[in-house]
Amino acid sequence: MNQLTIVKAGGKVVEEPELLKALLKDFSLIAGHKIFVHGGGRLATRIAEKLGIESQMNEGRRITDAETLKVVTMVYAGLINKNIVAQMQALSLDAIGLTGADMNLMLSMKRQVKDIDYGYVGDVKETNAPVLNELLNQNFVPVIAPITHDGYGQLLNTNADTIAGEIAKALAYSFNVRLIYCFEKKGVLRDEKDEDSVIKSIDKEEFNRYKETGIIKDGMIPKLENAFNAIAAGVKEVIITCASDVNTGRGTFIVPEREYKNERIKK
Amino acid sequence: MNQLTIVKAGGKVVEEPELLKALLKDFSLIAGHKIFVHGGGRLATRIAEKLGIESQMNEGRRITDAETLKVVTMVYAGLINKNIVAQMQALSLDAIGLTGADMNLMLSMKRQVKDIDYGYVGDVKETNAPVLNELLNQNFVPVIAPITHDGYGQLLNTNADTIAGEIAKALAYSFNVRLIYCFEKKGVLRDEKDEDSVIKSIDKEEFNRYKETGIIKDGMIPKLENAFNAIAAGVKEVIITCASDVNTGRGTFIVPEREYKNERIKK
Repeated sequence: MNQLTIVKAGGKVVEEPELLKALLKDFSLIAGHKIFVHGGGRLATRIAEKLGIESQMNEGRRITDAETLKVVTMVYAGLINKNIVAQMQALSLDAIGLTGADMNLMLSMKRQVKDIDYGYVGDVKETNAPVLNELLNQNFVPVIAPITHDGYGQLLNTNADTIAGEIAKALAYSFNVRLIYCFEKKGVLRDEKDEDSVIKSIDKEEFNRYKETGIIKDGMIPKLENAFNAIAAGVKEVIITCASDVNTGRGTFIVPEREYKNERIKK
Repeated sequence: MNQLTIVKAGGKVVEEPELLKALLKDFSLIAGHKIFVHGGGRLATRIAEKLGIESQMNEGRRITDAETLKVVTMVYAGLINKNIVAQMQALSLDAIGLTGADMNLMLSMKRQVKDIDYGYVGDVKETNAPVLNELLNQNFVPVIAPITHDGYGQLLNTNADTIAGEIAKALAYSFNVRLIYCFEKKGVLRDEKDEDSVIKSIDKEEFNRYKETGIIKDGMIPKLENAFNAIAAGVKEVIITCASDVNTGRGTFIVPEREYKNERIKK
């Protein structure tokens, strides 16, 4: 099977031109097929503020009313996505910027209201693997913005980590997939304040323990849940690292849980 | 050769949800291959205002400074483009929203400063016909936002009428292309105030005469220039009409100029 690297970049790195430029340069040097997934929440918050729209968050997830949906569609699918595409083209990557609505790439369902009404937020139902396969085989580099659609004409704001994880899972049947979540920190840290306390590898059991003791919290929880889902679904390698380590092999490696490993060995 | 219809929609029609919905429904009923090109200038102006950015125009063309470029990228490539794509998907059209940077679809050059510095405005240099051909043959419906790139990482604001015309010209080699410019009015009017004064057909000579007498002016001039360029380059049919007549065959038909016609007959 061919190698496919999926890089998900969020936080500061997609908003600070110099950081983004360096990341895209490193990304361009990765061999084999590639997909880039980006966030952009902070910039969306800033532009929403300027437009007089208040951003509401719950456990690191944005509550998306109709006006906020317009802002994230503008910022993610427009401003950030197209700037990344243009910069990749300058690096000789034949990039194509897409949301889940384009080519019906990612169908999602508006999140049902339980305790909290997240508004126009989508939970991914289906990823169009054949279309992505075709693009990759034609040597295009998909650049995915975290917006999906419900198939009835409604765009939905969707967590970028989840999008990266779902794409990795859907393509694990046709590629050796390596999924790299990159952000500001050097990996999952044992001590938030110590950049040298990177946990080199982590399995599900350890994750649960770290969660209980509060070492892993907030936005890291859904990130790691996406990572474990991907590993369990056959993604070869999942790494959480910082943007400047996209090519160095440093960071936190996600390890399949023991039971799952044994099951696979038995088969 | 297969039939290809390119619809360019601008003005109110892309900003008023009910008008847009009706147009997209009509568009979905057009047989054969299809491309949709959209503008969105008024919405961009409104959002720029809210963000405290002043819009400067010269002869119907926007002067695009760095901040304005961000706004048009957000509004055209994000908000408008992705909403159209999602609505088309709901109408069973497999739409894909693109700018000129995506798939290197449209390479342009920053307009040189003569009398006026238009800022980040691009004049189209090259249209990637093979990639568009491939998408059309796979039954995708490209939805094109009026943003291009220079190949060096810079996005450029580009007139949507020009984009539609350039695409029509580039695809005239492989399709029977019909190019429909639609806007608020029923066609090119002899009397601005009389919706029933539609000029049924117009050739270059008549265009020049109407221009001299001031019957055709402002934004209609570049629109018609694009139309005549397209006809001269082998586009089969160019029509200027209103959004609700996209499927009725009504409007102003652009007729090749006499000399050109004779030249073709001689060959």
